[in-house]
Amino acid sequence: MKVAIVMGSKSDMPVMQDAIDILKGFDIEIEVDIVSAHRTPEKLFDFSKNAHTRGIKVIIAGAGGAAHLPGMVASLSPLPVIGVPVKSSNSIDGWDSVLSILQMPGGVPVATVALNGAKNAGILAAQMISTADTCVLDKVIAYKEGLKTKVEQSAKNL
Amino acid sequence: MKVAIVMGSKSDMPVMQDAIDILKGFDIEIEVDIVSAHRTPEKLFDFSKNAHTRGIKVIIAGAGGAAHLPGMVASLSPLPVIGVPVKSSNSIDGWDSVLSILQMPGGVPVATVALNGAKNAGILAAQMISTADTCVLDKVIAYKEGLKTKVEQSAKNL
Amino acid sequence: MKVAIVMGSKSDMPVMQDAIDILKGFDIEIEVDIVSAHRTPEKLFDFSKNAHTRGIKVIIAGAGGAAHLPGMVASLSPLPVIGVPVKSSNSIDGWDSVLSILQMPGGVPVATVALNGAKNAGILAAQMISTADTCVLDKVIAYKEGLKTKVEQSAKNL
Amino acid sequence: MKVAIVMGSKSDMPVMQDAIDILKGFDIEIEVDIVSAHRTPEKLFDFSKNAHTRGIKVIIAGAGGAAHLPGMVASLSPLPVIGVPVKSSNSIDGWDSVLSILQMPGGVPVATVALNGAKNAGILAAQMISTADTCVLDKVIAYKEGLKTKVEQSAKNL
Amino acid sequence: MKVAIVMGSKSDMPVMQDAIDILKGFDIEIEVDIVSAHRTPEKLFDFSKNAHTRGIKVIIAGAGGAAHLPGMVASLSPLPVIGVPVKSSNSIDGWDSVLSILQMPGGVPVATVALNGAKNAGILAAQMISTADTCVLDKVIAYKEGLKTKVEQSAKNL
Amino acid sequence: MKVAIVMGSKSDMPVMQDAIDILKGFDIEIEVDIVSAHRTPEKLFDFSKNAHTRGIKVIIAGAGGAAHLPGMVASLSPLPVIGVPVKSSNSIDGWDSVLSILQMPGGVPVATVALNGAKNAGILAAQMISTADTCVLDKVIAYKEGLKTKVEQSAKNL
Amino acid sequence: MKVAIVMGSKSDMPVMQDAIDILKGFDIEIEVDIVSAHRTPEKLFDFSKNAHTRGIKVIIAGAGGAAHLPGMVASLSPLPVIGVPVKSSNSIDGWDSVLSILQMPGGVPVATVALNGAKNAGILAAQMISTADTCVLDKVIAYKEGLKTKVEQSAKNL
Amino acid sequence: MKVAIVMGSKSDMPVMQDAIDILKGFDIEIEVDIVSAHRTPEKLFDFSKNAHTRGIKVIIAGAGGAAHLPGMVASLSPLPVIGVPVKSSNSIDGWDSVLSILQMPGGVPVATVALNGAKNAGILAAQMISTADTCVLDKVIAYKEGLKTKVEQSAKNL
Repeated sequence: MKVAIVMGSKSDMPVMQDAIDILKGFDIEIEVDIVSAHRTPEKLFDFSKNAHTRGIKVIIAGAGGAAHLPGMVASLSPLPVIGVPVKSSNSIDGWDSVLSILQMPGGVPVATVALNGAKNAGILAAQMISTADTCVLDKVIAYKEGLKTKVEQSAKNL
Repeated sequence: MKVAIVMGSKSDMPVMQDAIDILKGFDIEIEVDIVSAHRTPEKLFDFSKNAHTRGIKVIIAGAGGAAHLPGMVASLSPLPVIGVPVKSSNSIDGWDSVLSILQMPGGVPVATVALNGAKNAGILAAQMISTADTCVLDKVIAYKEGLKTKVEQSAKNL
Repeated sequence: MKVAIVMGSKSDMPVMQDAIDILKGFDIEIEVDIVSAHRTPEKLFDFSKNAHTRGIKVIIAGAGGAAHLPGMVASLSPLPVIGVPVKSSNSIDGWDSVLSILQMPGGVPVATVALNGAKNAGILAAQMISTADTCVLDKVIAYKEGLKTKVEQSAKNL
Repeated sequence: MKVAIVMGSKSDMPVMQDAIDILKGFDIEIEVDIVSAHRTPEKLFDFSKNAHTRGIKVIIAGAGGAAHLPGMVASLSPLPVIGVPVKSSNSIDGWDSVLSILQMPGGVPVATVALNGAKNAGILAAQMISTADTCVLDKVIAYKEGLKTKVEQSAKNL
Repeated sequence: MKVAIVMGSKSDMPVMQDAIDILKGFDIEIEVDIVSAHRTPEKLFDFSKNAHTRGIKVIIAGAGGAAHLPGMVASLSPLPVIGVPVKSSNSIDGWDSVLSILQMPGGVPVATVALNGAKNAGILAAQMISTADTCVLDKVIAYKEGLKTKVEQSAKNL
Repeated sequence: MKVAIVMGSKSDMPVMQDAIDILKGFDIEIEVDIVSAHRTPEKLFDFSKNAHTRGIKVIIAGAGGAAHLPGMVASLSPLPVIGVPVKSSNSIDGWDSVLSILQMPGGVPVATVALNGAKNAGILAAQMISTADTCVLDKVIAYKEGLKTKVEQSAKNL
Repeated sequence: MKVAIVMGSKSDMPVMQDAIDILKGFDIEIEVDIVSAHRTPEKLFDFSKNAHTRGIKVIIAGAGGAAHLPGMVASLSPLPVIGVPVKSSNSIDGWDSVLSILQMPGGVPVATVALNGAKNAGILAAQMISTADTCVLDKVIAYKEGLKTKVEQSAKNL
Repeated sequence: MKVAIVMGSKSDMPVMQDAIDILKGFDIEIEVDIVSAHRTPEKLFDFSKNAHTRGIKVIIAGAGGAAHLPGMVASLSPLPVIGVPVKSSNSIDGWDSVLSILQMPGGVPVATVALNGAKNAGILAAQMISTADTCVLDKVIAYKEGLKTKVEQSAKNL
């Protein structure tokens, strides 16, 4: 029950680190790689066609600008793919990243999260895995309790 | 292993029907309901707090305009929530529906699909369930083969 | 005749402080709290269902990104709700905050002010209270005179 | 305790009728007029400067395109002003109407509702009046119950 | 043959200074004032109603956010009005300033220039005056020659 | 004292007719032509370089999409140029037409009116000519009185 | 010296036909196919990797929504790729099509034309081929003369 | 076989340098000049009308704001024109630059690249020349191999 985290460029790492941290916190096995749809298309093919045959259950893909990585992974793999629109330096305020990941045609979904929302991509991957593993569901419930406690604490400190 | 499909208004049904059809095609059990975040908030609470205790594994929520249903379900349930932005009559070209579902804060993800993309919500729900059930994964693979065949056929007919 | 000011996160406080300052300046009683629609939904319910039973007349709610707090408070309370779209760090130039507060469906209004417009939320709350209390109306009139004087002074200093 | 409903052009009437209907349903006295900020500026002045002296408690103003009516009424009157952005024929998808009503400077609020959201303007006016008149608050509570019943009915009919 | 330059706030001065400089460079008489549509509406009326009776031929009006000053001056004065959308601190990337000045209804034009384009407002005012004064037309021709020379010089320096 | 009205394509005529009608109503001499910046660039040059030498005082230029006609006329002529963004069939909701006319660089202004705002272009041209001809100013004043009367009449008919 | 025209779906054909017609008019050999990045990724690979080895000199690729076809062809082929953003039924006003084709990362260009601008894609392909074949350059010059004549004719018919 | 690189202002040079560097790296002869559509229209004409008669095969044109340079060059020259939208200081987030270059009317294409995408303009120019010169095609293939190697290296360094 592994989650693969791929990104189009090493410059996406500061954003994507949040997904890594979340999944480590949930004790979910991960693998991390750089796969560029536009510069390493063969690697994209190999990675995507085979991911489900080697224990990966969910793929998180982050990219910016004309962000084709999440959609192309979804095209090639039967696994659920979570797309993280990254507000990269060459992006027009993030709109290009968001729209080129979100607006997939009927038949090939990408589960899109907020701009730079890699943390939520990690949580979503855990929730998907919790479909098969109720222990993870319990961890998600505990995580949400933690969020609540933190807000309540900050309310007390007003 | 059930998928719940909820929508904010019966006027969302023509869009959301695509999710129903896909999941029926995959032989996945569904339940369908109208739950309005703004007009039936108590029902929203009851539904969301308890969904995971009665066999539901994934929730699909569709809404338009200031679309709070998917995010509020995600706030209240530990299950993965798929959000379908609906281009309703009171929407500004769909931008409000998209942004109020997609841009969830860190900690509370909604897996957002394209505007009116209920078909993809259905497929994504099936993919999530396939994490636990490899038969569904095989159906997803077969479904994708079908897509390919259809494109190849239309290419031949040019 | 109290005004409640709630916000989704303590990071909204620098923006929301303007509403606090205005209402204090008008000698209107306030209470301030952090209520997160997504992380403390039960608190959201308790707060919103009961506000009108304990002397609160107007609610100001500020939030950013997929900002569901103002709309959900409006769903649960019969009181007039003023929404302040906050340009938070996870927002796409503020558009998400604005649209997810403004575009409420028919039946459940939120009185939306400008992006980061907490000062105007405070004045608007005072104007609502002035419906019942003509002293406050006089203070609003005096406040507006003060604005005029300040502009005239800056014109003289050109 | 009267609500004034003004609009920039008779072509706004089909949209603004919703506010009239709501307020009549709440048994709140109204007056309706056409006041164009750009074509009848003197009438705008007379109306706005005097409204609060003749029993009006809330003003609803609807306009489209470069919609200056709500903001100018708010500039001239101490009363709370509700702005309805109208998607008129000369509007760019409604964005101009929304932004020129919503983005008022600090000191001069307009309580903005959704594009074409005159129904919500009517409810909001009633809520403002309920600050002074608890009977109206009860009517708002009953109205919201009615919304809930209607949704529950449509859920049963699925 | 005077040009009046008005702005909604002293914070608009750094932008509007460009119009002052251009018109001084063309030896055209100017007057400069702060007139806020929202905070000094009476001054707005007095200024606009009388400008054409005291030798003013063109009015330049700059404002930001929900920028009503140029349109309201155009409503009240028969003179040509040039609007300068200012990207003020409370603006949503300048879109509100642009749309609330540009999108005037049929009958009441505002000659809109680019965001922060006060320099062009000054040149445009000079061109309008050149309709009556061919000396100014000659100055405009000379000014444009100067632009050309500067570009040619920078091309040589490549 | 002539006004030239040019447009990029005969398909712009239904929009540009409003400018023709207004100027005829003000008894201002006009000439009308089709000049395409992209398909007849030599005609663009001849027209623009010489317009001011043959009695033309103001140029109105309408175009859609990547609308370069108004800006290029302004580049080549010392006369004031009024740009009308046309929402042509190849336009993205009019945004391209608006931005490519409005956002001229410092030194080369185009007096931009609303999307499809040819009527206002005609009035603005008349106002520019009124700088030199007070009879036209009187006609503008009368025209504005007519607008007021029409609004008052429609208010009476409510 | 062949041009390949590919599109993501047969529903793109009415738009893409313009490119076919233009290239036929220039007597340039073409081949036309349907290649879906998301549904036939293997065909995408085969087509793109080999196009330059079998006489194709330029590739035109049209797609809508999250339009990945042009960018993925450009990733896999060394040939110049022209992208046509199609305003398909699942597109948000065409913005998604435009941004996901235009905003390619450094290293992998797509020559993007206007929304639905397949005619211009055809002309651009001819211009690229004219780099190698001056006969085609002469045809482009003649084509442009034809455009001019048509505009001049419509000007005469005013 | 020369490529001309022109830009509207020397302030565009930091962006356009990327195109120069790429073409030098491919050993393609270039010429660089500043040509302003709005300030040096005669130079624009001379340059564009004659470029194809003196060995130039492709023109790259960069400009910002209401960016008319690429489209006007395309209007006047039969050569393929690549447009680089520059996010200049007077631009509204780059949208004006993008739309006024991209949205050319049928008949006059501009091959548009990403905002500030001068590097891709250089590569695209090389690809166009490779139509006539297979040595350049080999260099493009080698360049793309280099991109791949760099990504693979950064993946190893994770």
